[in-house]
Amino acid sequence: MNYDQFFTDAVDALRRERRYRTFADIERNAQRFPRATWHSPGGPREITVWCSNDYLGMGSHPDVVEAMRETALKRGAGAGGTRNISGNSHEIVLLERELADLHGKDAGLVFTSGYVSNETGISTIVKLIPDCVVISDELNHNSMIAGVRMGGRQKAIFRHNDLDHLEELLQAAGNRPKLIVFESVYSMDGDIAPIAAICDLAERYGAMTYLDEVHAVGMYGPRGAGVAERDGVMHRVDVIEGTLGKAFGVVGGYLTGSRVVMDAVRSYAPGFIFTTALPPAIAAAATASVRHLKHSTKEREGQRAQVAKVKAALAAAGLPQMDTPTHIIPIMVGDAKACKAACDVLLTEHSIYIQPINYPTVPRGTERLRITPTPFHDDKLIAQLAEALTDVWSRLDLPRVRDAGHERRTVAMGTAPIAMPIAGG
Amino acid sequence: MNYDQFFTDAVDALRRERRYRTFADIERNAQRFPRATWHSPGGPREITVWCSNDYLGMGSHPDVVEAMRETALKRGAGAGGTRNISGNSHEIVLLERELADLHGKDAGLVFTSGYVSNETGISTIVKLIPDCVVISDELNHNSMIAGVRMGGRQKAIFRHNDLDHLEELLQAAGNRPKLIVFESVYSMDGDIAPIAAICDLAERYGAMTYLDEVHAVGMYGPRGAGVAERDGVMHRVDVIEGTLGKAFGVVGGYLTGSRVVMDAVRSYAPGFIFTTALPPAIAAAATASVRHLKHSTKEREGQRAQVAKVKAALAAAGLPQMDTPTHIIPIMVGDAKACKAACDVLLTEHSIYIQPINYPTVPRGTERLRITPTPFHDDKLIAQLAEALTDVWSRLDLPRVRDAGHERRTVAMGTAPIAMPIAGG
Repeated sequence: MNYDQFFTDAVDALRRERRYRTFADIERNAQRFPRATWHSPGGPREITVWCSNDYLGMGSHPDVVEAMRETALKRGAGAGGTRNISGNSHEIVLLERELADLHGKDAGLVFTSGYVSNETGISTIVKLIPDCVVISDELNHNSMIAGVRMGGRQKAIFRHNDLDHLEELLQAAGNRPKLIVFESVYSMDGDIAPIAAICDLAERYGAMTYLDEVHAVGMYGPRGAGVAERDGVMHRVDVIEGTLGKAFGVVGGYLTGSRVVMDAVRSYAPGFIFTTALPPAIAAAATASVRHLKHSTKEREGQRAQVAKVKAALAAAGLPQMDTPTHIIPIMVGDAKACKAACDVLLTEHSIYIQPINYPTVPRGTERLRITPTPFHDDKLIAQLAEALTDVWSRLDLPRVRDAGHERRTVAMGTAPIAMPIAGG
Repeated sequence: MNYDQFFTDAVDALRRERRYRTFADIERNAQRFPRATWHSPGGPREITVWCSNDYLGMGSHPDVVEAMRETALKRGAGAGGTRNISGNSHEIVLLERELADLHGKDAGLVFTSGYVSNETGISTIVKLIPDCVVISDELNHNSMIAGVRMGGRQKAIFRHNDLDHLEELLQAAGNRPKLIVFESVYSMDGDIAPIAAICDLAERYGAMTYLDEVHAVGMYGPRGAGVAERDGVMHRVDVIEGTLGKAFGVVGGYLTGSRVVMDAVRSYAPGFIFTTALPPAIAAAATASVRHLKHSTKEREGQRAQVAKVKAALAAAGLPQMDTPTHIIPIMVGDAKACKAACDVLLTEHSIYIQPINYPTVPRGTERLRITPTPFHDDKLIAQLAEALTDVWSRLDLPRVRDAGHERRTVAMGTAPIAMPIAGG
């Protein structure tokens, strides 16, 4: 049996569809964020990263870095075990308290990643609710889809942010228990869910709510707890999921909620129980970041200012950005090959790194660049970006302004040999 | 709808079955490993940890800690993105090369945890092999079972380390593609798979092999690549999975294998694609650990010596240890309540921390203590351990020596409300 052939065929299929991915080999420079060294085929080169999820540059914040360094020295590099078997560090206990406080909940629970928190969190929650119907936004992240699937309950998918359709599905589920699963900021389009209205419906129809705020924590709300905090509805959401790996600048994921829900997930979720805990140094760095962003608004304000400037510069240049109410700025290209070519020219000739976003992360025909300005992308870098993009758009003869706001994704799932739901990678 | 009641019921069920878990709140002391501070209900107390998976104390090794600290300073606390979108740090690229070299394979692939590497790795591999039958050891870790389930292929479970049964199942699968999924060191019983004989069968019946060496990497073989290296059969295994979170002392998991298999998993595995990469500081610390243990045998030799001394001391004391060929020393208690009580007395009165191992991690009636001596558990600590255990066994009137070697687990799966397969948490 020639097993290698199966894998060769699978990889060849990606190449044929022009969606074989090559990872850029990057050395971040914490002292000069968002500058980095790219290990290009021709040797190391300095570049500017414009596509990081370290949205506020907190990964380079001195308090965060120092917490990591100091804790590594005192506690060592790892946790040494699962949470149950010697890996429950004091630092992770403190982090969970900090996160519970951030979201105004009883308790928090830390996972090795946001992906795992969604996958094992959602699946465990729905397994513990007899006869539960899961009602899920069609653009939910792959990790949430994985959690819904693994939960094995009946599911109903509502059209993206469509309250009427959500209400229909809630009605159709009748008196059965229901879990509404949704995000606040959708990462590829940069749009925001109507959280308050979803909570209204949840209350009217007796549904429990599970909200993913991974692209919003640290960024929105007076203490950086997310869009639900900003909108004054945090207390109406049952479970809030977040990440320590984006605006908080470290790594890991978490849930917050009532004591009993967190205790049940802690006690039953395989992806929580049977895995080594995050190192104390990671937990301490994350705690430092969360604490800092609870009190400091400088980063959020700085970022908002630079996001507005980037949007203005792109508009002035006639580039087809999607109109978003968030920090995420997609620029439409609409073709996989052109999208990759644009990114290659940006990187090799302008030393600007923006990863092409192609299918299956977004549907075919909506291939795009996705720009995420931080407070550290100063006016000079913004001017360079606009100039570089203008050059690339001219050289490759890419489409200019059109009604990019209408280019919203529709659901595109499934491709041989494995169906890969959209969003995020 | 009173959702909280569902979760309260689930937690109450665990309490009734005496398997509600309380995590000990621990501060490791990197300078004085395996000493730690326990945040007890009565305040902080110094204890000795005897149940860590940091088997060689590498989490406290100066090279490992310094690599983490230096890289955090230079590169910041996090990766800033998925592997595809700006998170592919040079440090993680170097780590993957180091791991490929360790196992004598073309390529390595790093995941956020060993759990994730098994779950998304196995499921992706079997999905890419049309009509694959998965043939899996009955005592495989929860993460492997999760991977097999998620893969959605037909599966066949062979009795633990039973070559005749494995051969039967291989024959029964006929000409269909087959993946044999197994571990080298089984973590709760401390026994070892007949890897060479399994490879013989795999070759005879044209099966691909997937071997989990998480409890063996760093520990066995001349360069610490695991039992397959020790047995001279590493080149005969197709995919070797390992962890950076046990003997290597950090956190994270990985696969190694042929270039095309790694490339296919890299390109198709959702749990790899849609998640933030491990921080550069974690990757650098892991690389330092792997490199050190490739050349240094001091840690392995020191550990083996201390393991032998612990086994001798327990035998002299007439304590019912299971006879194992590995570094894992289970002591049988055989009752959940007594097991917990023994651990409580050890901790509160002898300042010795050994987590009780109860159902569902092991089958009911085989509850045990699980001791993992490191090279840093010196002779004085071993004497204290034997004395403390003798005291506890007398006070609680626990069973003394019997033929503990026959107390091997049998498969015990499934319990309301969620089935939790055995091993590891």
